[in-house]
Amino acid sequence: MTPAVHRAYRGVFPVAPTVFDDRGELDLDGQRRCIDFMIDAGSNGICILANFSEQFVLTDAERDQVMQAVLAHVAGRVPVIVTTTHFSSSICAARSRQAQQAGAAMVMVMPPYHGATFRVSEKAIFDFYRIVSDAIDIPIMIQDAPVAGTPLSVDFLARMARDIPNVSYFKIEVPMAAAKLRDLIAAGGDSIAGPWDGEEAITLMADLEAGATGAMTGGGYPDGIRQVVDPYFAGRREDAAEAYARWLPLINYENRQCGLQACKILMKEGGVIGSEMVRHPLQKVHPATRAGLLDIARRLDPVVLRWGH
Amino acid sequence: MTPAVHRAYRGVFPVAPTVFDDRGELDLDGQRRCIDFMIDAGSNGICILANFSEQFVLTDAERDQVMQAVLAHVAGRVPVIVTTTHFSSSICAARSRQAQQAGAAMVMVMPPYHGATFRVSEKAIFDFYRIVSDAIDIPIMIQDAPVAGTPLSVDFLARMARDIPNVSYFKIEVPMAAAKLRDLIAAGGDSIAGPWDGEEAITLMADLEAGATGAMTGGGYPDGIRQVVDPYFAGRREDAAEAYARWLPLINYENRQCGLQACKILMKEGGVIGSEMVRHPLQKVHPATRAGLLDIARRLDPVVLRWGH
Amino acid sequence: MTPAVHRAYRGVFPVAPTVFDDRGELDLDGQRRCIDFMIDAGSNGICILANFSEQFVLTDAERDQVMQAVLAHVAGRVPVIVTTTHFSSSICAARSRQAQQAGAAMVMVMPPYHGATFRVSEKAIFDFYRIVSDAIDIPIMIQDAPVAGTPLSVDFLARMARDIPNVSYFKIEVPMAAAKLRDLIAAGGDSIAGPWDGEEAITLMADLEAGATGAMTGGGYPDGIRQVVDPYFAGRREDAAEAYARWLPLINYENRQCGLQACKILMKEGGVIGSEMVRHPLQKVHPATRAGLLDIARRLDPVVLRWGH
Amino acid sequence: MTPAVHRAYRGVFPVAPTVFDDRGELDLDGQRRCIDFMIDAGSNGICILANFSEQFVLTDAERDQVMQAVLAHVAGRVPVIVTTTHFSSSICAARSRQAQQAGAAMVMVMPPYHGATFRVSEKAIFDFYRIVSDAIDIPIMIQDAPVAGTPLSVDFLARMARDIPNVSYFKIEVPMAAAKLRDLIAAGGDSIAGPWDGEEAITLMADLEAGATGAMTGGGYPDGIRQVVDPYFAGRREDAAEAYARWLPLINYENRQCGLQACKILMKEGGVIGSEMVRHPLQKVHPATRAGLLDIARRLDPVVLRWGH
Repeated sequence: MTPAVHRAYRGVFPVAPTVFDDRGELDLDGQRRCIDFMIDAGSNGICILANFSEQFVLTDAERDQVMQAVLAHVAGRVPVIVTTTHFSSSICAARSRQAQQAGAAMVMVMPPYHGATFRVSEKAIFDFYRIVSDAIDIPIMIQDAPVAGTPLSVDFLARMARDIPNVSYFKIEVPMAAAKLRDLIAAGGDSIAGPWDGEEAITLMADLEAGATGAMTGGGYPDGIRQVVDPYFAGRREDAAEAYARWLPLINYENRQCGLQACKILMKEGGVIGSEMVRHPLQKVHPATRAGLLDIARRLDPVVLRWGH
Repeated sequence: MTPAVHRAYRGVFPVAPTVFDDRGELDLDGQRRCIDFMIDAGSNGICILANFSEQFVLTDAERDQVMQAVLAHVAGRVPVIVTTTHFSSSICAARSRQAQQAGAAMVMVMPPYHGATFRVSEKAIFDFYRIVSDAIDIPIMIQDAPVAGTPLSVDFLARMARDIPNVSYFKIEVPMAAAKLRDLIAAGGDSIAGPWDGEEAITLMADLEAGATGAMTGGGYPDGIRQVVDPYFAGRREDAAEAYARWLPLINYENRQCGLQACKILMKEGGVIGSEMVRHPLQKVHPATRAGLLDIARRLDPVVLRWGH
Repeated sequence: MTPAVHRAYRGVFPVAPTVFDDRGELDLDGQRRCIDFMIDAGSNGICILANFSEQFVLTDAERDQVMQAVLAHVAGRVPVIVTTTHFSSSICAARSRQAQQAGAAMVMVMPPYHGATFRVSEKAIFDFYRIVSDAIDIPIMIQDAPVAGTPLSVDFLARMARDIPNVSYFKIEVPMAAAKLRDLIAAGGDSIAGPWDGEEAITLMADLEAGATGAMTGGGYPDGIRQVVDPYFAGRREDAAEAYARWLPLINYENRQCGLQACKILMKEGGVIGSEMVRHPLQKVHPATRAGLLDIARRLDPVVLRWGH
Repeated sequence: MTPAVHRAYRGVFPVAPTVFDDRGELDLDGQRRCIDFMIDAGSNGICILANFSEQFVLTDAERDQVMQAVLAHVAGRVPVIVTTTHFSSSICAARSRQAQQAGAAMVMVMPPYHGATFRVSEKAIFDFYRIVSDAIDIPIMIQDAPVAGTPLSVDFLARMARDIPNVSYFKIEVPMAAAKLRDLIAAGGDSIAGPWDGEEAITLMADLEAGATGAMTGGGYPDGIRQVVDPYFAGRREDAAEAYARWLPLINYENRQCGLQACKILMKEGGVIGSEMVRHPLQKVHPATRAGLLDIARRLDPVVLRWGH
């Protein structure tokens, strides 16, 4: 159960990319423009330093720079979720406290993992989240995704929601996500403040029908995701389904062909940022793949392609 | 390079489900009706005994029954691909020879795997496919999918295409499939008789643009997939893209919410088969998920929902 | 809880290899000699058709041949555990019933898995074992090993022991096996008829100290394992520790260098069987590795190297 | 091929644990005592910040503190290998350059990985190591271990040894390590300056026979490992085999029961360090496991148990 100090966050909270220049150095001016665009395009909130933000190619110092720059620049315009995942319980707790002090509205945390083989028991995961929760006064979103290599059962997630004060949001992006959301809502009841959709909205419509109240998508076209989520929450299911069908080719292309580069390519093409660089050893997508993305996006006239021009 | 005894197979070759009755026993009459429907709905060919056919819940004897029943019933109306994957090189070779003798046009074979941990070296994989190839005179399709837990590099696939006579088709259903197809076609040249799309067509449009000449999809709506593939091959790319966008909500729902049950649900609802049973420990999807599938399908008026009524 | 129709099985129950001739065909005469040796060398029981028996390179018909041949030949001299793992609940149940009818004392069953990706929920695993249990009147041993890719928590194992009548033996061969055995015994109490050691005895001494009552090892030197287990059960811990230290170089070499080929090499060298063939794509170990195994074994004078001469 | 500015490093290079106090804070005094012990006990060199050093529970700043403290304290008494693995090529290169500047003799680097799913292609791995190599003038040891989830073929490793100047050492700790070492030496020839054993010496004797010239073990008993390696290198194979058999119960107990805690427990018990704390969510081993380790160790009278008293 989470303290009722906030009304539940709802809506579209896309992941902001970490913006680099062409040499691969942080571009904080570009980062700020990226954030401005994302707010202008209708984001109800923003998540930073997620895996889709290439957090795993940053130093600790760079993580901090990005966090401070974004939180200062957002300045309360929208709530910001900061990803603070670390294997160490105390380091994750310290990162989470720093995020809160800097103005984060929520932290997103995966269970502890390292590489293909270091995993911990359910009991240790429970204590890990409890330690993080004890260090802060803002909600924790548990990210349930294959990258952690840690299956989290519905019963266990619901138990953490009930027994750990700040654990209250859940981003479900595992196979059969909608079924898991449905079961989680049934098992956790009021202690589930936010059952959320993830993974670039590739399961958004099914997740909404299962009860999702938020969507953490890629950062390139919050306006498009709003066209699905807003009518759905307003009770206009048919309009939502139509909008979803309209945006699905782009969502699918992002999910399967471009991954975390989709939003960078769109933002570069739309003049939001100056470079779509990803850090090596990540590799740029093939030019034909890039062209394919833009071809599909242009049919939809997203804000991103007009914002910087 | 494959002997040029056949013109390359092209088009839509969906996977046929294995049909059970409500007690979970083989329903060969239902199996034959399923095949008739799939041909009527426009399949250019059919694949049987794939993982999407629940081949891993069958006994050897049942595999044989299904193969004999289907090949006898198809009787040459369309080419049939028989999945003959087995960890043992000699058993896979024997299964493949039996498939050829029974009338199969091609065999589909994954590299050897067992469970999470038994894998073999690249050299052993090469020899495995060579042994299978030596036993038959029909083409082999290598299935490159995550279930095998065996990364297959483009260079290795191209080398097998060049150096093993019957290895000539490739179904690519790993992340970034289109990029891999593009690289494979460049590396393998004429020895790649069939660079194919898979995974329920969730990457079909991108795969076609990358050069795919075939699509191995779920069995529920070959007519829909033909609406994408036919115009694309006829040079009408815009029509293909429009058709793909139209069918994508259904493709996506199958890929992410229903898996191998999608075609069984559609076939049951359309009167093609009498039971949509999957064998335990596979679990039926939630009734809401089932309803969601039918809701999306009905908007598209696929043949399957009309065929049996 | 298991029906108290049997006194708990205890001691050394090695896995019998499946014996092939040099062409890779079943050698049932060799299989019978292998069994005779294993009994002569002190096996308290024998397990057949395990992964260490290369069960994954057999056809269903071959599985049946091996099972019938071994059970007829053993003829009650020692209890025989038959591995009956299959993804399908009903096929595993049928296999288990056939094993019981043929004279098996117990069945060993892994949770359902296929390849790297097909796994089922805890609820489905529970029902899978319940279905198998309902089909038979002999105990079930749950094999808890990495090959299944299915983490099984202590709580879940203990719950199955309590709630499924024939589930009563547990072979634990995951990392930190001794700690898991200790926890399992504490959690499951009397419903754990047999907390067993596995994985070639590489953790045998620690497992005994944790409470293990049986060891399922490789088949090459039951006499050696008996030298550890017998004094331990007789309360002579120091003698057991000394014997374990003496045999550990061989156990370690089997576990890390030769795997399932260790016992075949030893049996071939000792005249027990005529061929140490493993089925392709499994590869023979390097001649230097083979020589290393024999060098270590000869220092210990195991029965296997004398039995056939 | 590596520049011949150094004679090849050989012998026992154990991993130093990262020493914490009872609150989990860095204990640099303890760290220095740990290093002094390791040198006194016969380490030919030392590796720091490896996974066995819990590097994944450190902040970047703590990594730097440990590295600076150890390198300053060693002050050239023995060569020090610094682990500098990071997913980002440029960050790994920068870390490696800093290690060289601080006095490291070598860097140890795993291929890029993050969690269960982020992996890169062979081409990207090659470029990653080339970028690191270009930044430094000291040798690189490639760590080939399951934690990376990245199979590295012998051909690929040998190619990197030939084509990337500083890539010249290889710590092989995958299944069938000895066979891989043998193949690697055959494929790479002179460009393999150091084919090394790893994983707590659990395969040491077989690896030496395959041609290993170094062993990276746990830090608790370098004196024991020297008793194996020294006679082997002096041509007294029988003495080495006897010593290996003598120490194997301890090596095995470390490898299978205690992992990275073994050396901390031994050092604490011997008065080398003041706390055996590991950082949460890592869990202390069971008291019975701890007692079992000490029981086995005491029979061998290792330096560690006497050093601090």
